[in-house]
Amino acid sequence: MTSDGMTSDSAEAANPPEGFTLGQRGPFTVHNGPIFRKETDDGLVQGFRVFDRHCNGVGILHGGMMMAFIDGVLGTAVWRETDRPALTIRMTCDFLSIARPGDWIEGLGTVTKATRSVAFVEGRVWTGEKTVLTASGVFKMMRKRKYD
Amino acid sequence: MTSDGMTSDSAEAANPPEGFTLGQRGPFTVHNGPIFRKETDDGLVQGFRVFDRHCNGVGILHGGMMMAFIDGVLGTAVWRETDRPALTIRMTCDFLSIARPGDWIEGLGTVTKATRSVAFVEGRVWTGEKTVLTASGVFKMMRKRKYD
Repeated sequence: MTSDGMTSDSAEAANPPEGFTLGQRGPFTVHNGPIFRKETDDGLVQGFRVFDRHCNGVGILHGGMMMAFIDGVLGTAVWRETDRPALTIRMTCDFLSIARPGDWIEGLGTVTKATRSVAFVEGRVWTGEKTVLTASGVFKMMRKRKYD
Repeated sequence: MTSDGMTSDSAEAANPPEGFTLGQRGPFTVHNGPIFRKETDDGLVQGFRVFDRHCNGVGILHGGMMMAFIDGVLGTAVWRETDRPALTIRMTCDFLSIARPGDWIEGLGTVTKATRSVAFVEGRVWTGEKTVLTASGVFKMMRKRKYD
């Protein structure tokens, strides 16, 4: 296992459930990936396999990795709802349970309100039947960039 | 630059201000480091240099990295105050400003209350004179482990 989340070795080792594919992500997410995604009736579910590099000194999934993951999940939900980029301005996370190396983690976000200036979004992270984290985020909407 | 935060190359490239040294950390923190520490009159200040791998697709410090960093800062503050391990159960972060590659980031946490079962802790992340993030955390106190 290399520490580069986007190597094919690493993506294969993650062994995601059927239907999950890799998406285009920024450097921090790639470094801590691989993060996969799958379209579902509820929205775009994202997921990753817990490796040792995602864990703290006690050998369980690091709270910082959970928060980084849900931040990306909520940001993606805002992007899909509004078609505009946004920046996190407040995030509250409740850590309901732990996860361990080998666990397959999934997360989903839902926009509860979006205006011209802010978006409110709720999210959940789980493994199997167990909720690991719930989150509530406020995002500041940015002007649409022209990528050409 | 390798992606292993603990290589001497990476620690040297981080070029921390005088007095900052590397501490012993878990796999996730090492992977996203190097994180340095320095004793001050206010407490143990932690710091890191922003590299590209800490950034999102827009090229600014990823919110997830900020949250992971402050989670470690607050956890360290609880450990030093209580001499017991603790798990994050709630964290609220306000993202006050952005940071960019090359910026030197510092963070400090202060325990406001600690009981046998929980600890409350406040923290701040800054670069130069600019506050980047404030955080408020609740930690569940764990039984002291015997490491022998």
